[in-house]
Amino acid sequence: MKALVYNGPGDKSWTDVPNPEIINSTDVIVRVETTTICGSDLHILKGDVPAVTKGRILGHEGVGTITEIGSSVSTLSVGDRVIISCVKSCGHCANCKTGLYSHCLGDEGTSGIGWIFGHLIDGTQAEFVRVPYAENSLYKVPEGVTEDQAVMLSDILPTGFEIGVQNGQIKPGDVVAVIGAGPVGLSAMATAGLYGAATIIAIDLDKNRLEQAKEFGATDTVVSSATDWKAQILALTDGAGVDVAIEAVGIPQTFTMATEIVRPGGRVANVGVHGKPVELHLEELWIKNINISMGLVNTNTLPMLLKLVAQGKLPAEKFASHHFSFDQMLEAYDTFGRAAETNALKVVISR
Amino acid sequence: MKALVYNGPGDKSWTDVPNPEIINSTDVIVRVETTTICGSDLHILKGDVPAVTKGRILGHEGVGTITEIGSSVSTLSVGDRVIISCVKSCGHCANCKTGLYSHCLGDEGTSGIGWIFGHLIDGTQAEFVRVPYAENSLYKVPEGVTEDQAVMLSDILPTGFEIGVQNGQIKPGDVVAVIGAGPVGLSAMATAGLYGAATIIAIDLDKNRLEQAKEFGATDTVVSSATDWKAQILALTDGAGVDVAIEAVGIPQTFTMATEIVRPGGRVANVGVHGKPVELHLEELWIKNINISMGLVNTNTLPMLLKLVAQGKLPAEKFASHHFSFDQMLEAYDTFGRAAETNALKVVISR
Repeated sequence: MKALVYNGPGDKSWTDVPNPEIINSTDVIVRVETTTICGSDLHILKGDVPAVTKGRILGHEGVGTITEIGSSVSTLSVGDRVIISCVKSCGHCANCKTGLYSHCLGDEGTSGIGWIFGHLIDGTQAEFVRVPYAENSLYKVPEGVTEDQAVMLSDILPTGFEIGVQNGQIKPGDVVAVIGAGPVGLSAMATAGLYGAATIIAIDLDKNRLEQAKEFGATDTVVSSATDWKAQILALTDGAGVDVAIEAVGIPQTFTMATEIVRPGGRVANVGVHGKPVELHLEELWIKNINISMGLVNTNTLPMLLKLVAQGKLPAEKFASHHFSFDQMLEAYDTFGRAAETNALKVVISR
Repeated sequence: MKALVYNGPGDKSWTDVPNPEIINSTDVIVRVETTTICGSDLHILKGDVPAVTKGRILGHEGVGTITEIGSSVSTLSVGDRVIISCVKSCGHCANCKTGLYSHCLGDEGTSGIGWIFGHLIDGTQAEFVRVPYAENSLYKVPEGVTEDQAVMLSDILPTGFEIGVQNGQIKPGDVVAVIGAGPVGLSAMATAGLYGAATIIAIDLDKNRLEQAKEFGATDTVVSSATDWKAQILALTDGAGVDVAIEAVGIPQTFTMATEIVRPGGRVANVGVHGKPVELHLEELWIKNINISMGLVNTNTLPMLLKLVAQGKLPAEKFASHHFSFDQMLEAYDTFGRAAETNALKVVISR
């Protein structure tokens, strides 16, 4: 089969590799119909994630059809159309039993599982993929849900919702600021209203992205390069700050921005993937009664979000900005990698 | 009357000052029977809290008897014996209505109130004190509760409980680490069992304090200067880290320790008052699904803790390590300031 293979920093290829096979009785094989690219794939390609070794097939998002099932799989069948969650989880370990799928203790020859696809084991940017712990990691797609919609449920929609909106404990009437209007930030904006956010402020350097943000639920926008960015945000509150500040970039500056605009008693929800430490101004923040959350998505809200998509209440398809075929995989990477120029949100790659 | 007056960095006196008077209709005057000294009083005396101006009467903890009430006070009477909460709150503003008394928006000529005693207005280390918003800031002492017990409810017990135990979301069976075995850390240890903590690890540099900690609920102790301090703590868990790490010191090193020992899905509850920023290792922590809380006590659990003290279920009196009379105020400061030598926990100063 063909797959997108990481050959070391700066080097990737769409090339022939052996088809995957069932290894454990809880595995299934999925024929990938649709996949997409995540910002973390770009990080890996830069060499920023040393755990990823040469020869690894990248990708952790996808939709496909089951072609083979392991001997102990009873709730899935050959022919099922499924969403592949970015997080693999056994469903049975101590962490899974509390819903902490992101830190599943299952055994894949790695230290815990969680995010292993396209990271510690081969991923979804391929014609076929082996899915471990399939019964807890795959979700059947109901009739009427399109590929464009379904693939957004592998990662970005649950991540924005669980790590941004739910961890941020958004309540009816809240003023919510989302720093970073990329796909995950937009996912937080698109789902903040589910818990009644009244004002959703999109904050980004890029005016195009801010315009897009209005289509995803943002009620207001602030260009973060403006010298008065903070005053603009505070003017949208009672002056004391936002109830919830969601960081969806992953650099020290934007994390600090989040801590600067949150009101006493408010919440900072970090969604961004960080590569460096940040300076936390505890000398000012200790007295503010704030809460800072962070984490990898568990995807245990995937069924709920999928239901909303099926009901027509969550326009997941809007994230699909560009479409490519599998043999245009490298072109898709190029378009996604130059998102500032191409205005790419999610590039959808299908057979 | 006599009072402990701050005369600028390094300079204090027990001296004659005018008696306080009712200013607002919601004020009362309390004849202070018992007061104590907090670590933050020592910070102020070093000049670390520039908001405190010369001439300020220090202290935010106390027990006493009401001698005069403002015209709109209806639920308190002259002669009532009361605990003076370290936090003043109107009970009516938007923040108070959510229980966020620490950030009360009431008007005392300051920007919000909350912790103003011995900080922005005159405090409790005096023979008499004016208590603003008295009906929401004073708590009647039931029969049988001693001065030694009652004064611990002004600040340390609610602080350890609300900012450590409750913010840390301690659950039955949890392994809890408390870094810092001073009065507030010990308060967290003494109340962690209320929510079912199974293992309570006291961590401190001082072996004497660790011995004391066992009397306040610690099940295990770790000397933080040991080279294998972290391994010792992990050995008391399943190897993945503690469920809750409570920071009760207020320096960067101890905050970092807390983030290093918390398990995936765990909570870091910062209780310490910090004077410097800390480096937060988001490059490692973003994926750990942890929560970091911080804040000033609201004291809205004071009635619950008071009930437990009255029931004999919370031995508040154990914190009273030394006793002084009002005219020994400077001696009390000296004993508390040299706690490492004197083994002082809380110095109780009474008429």
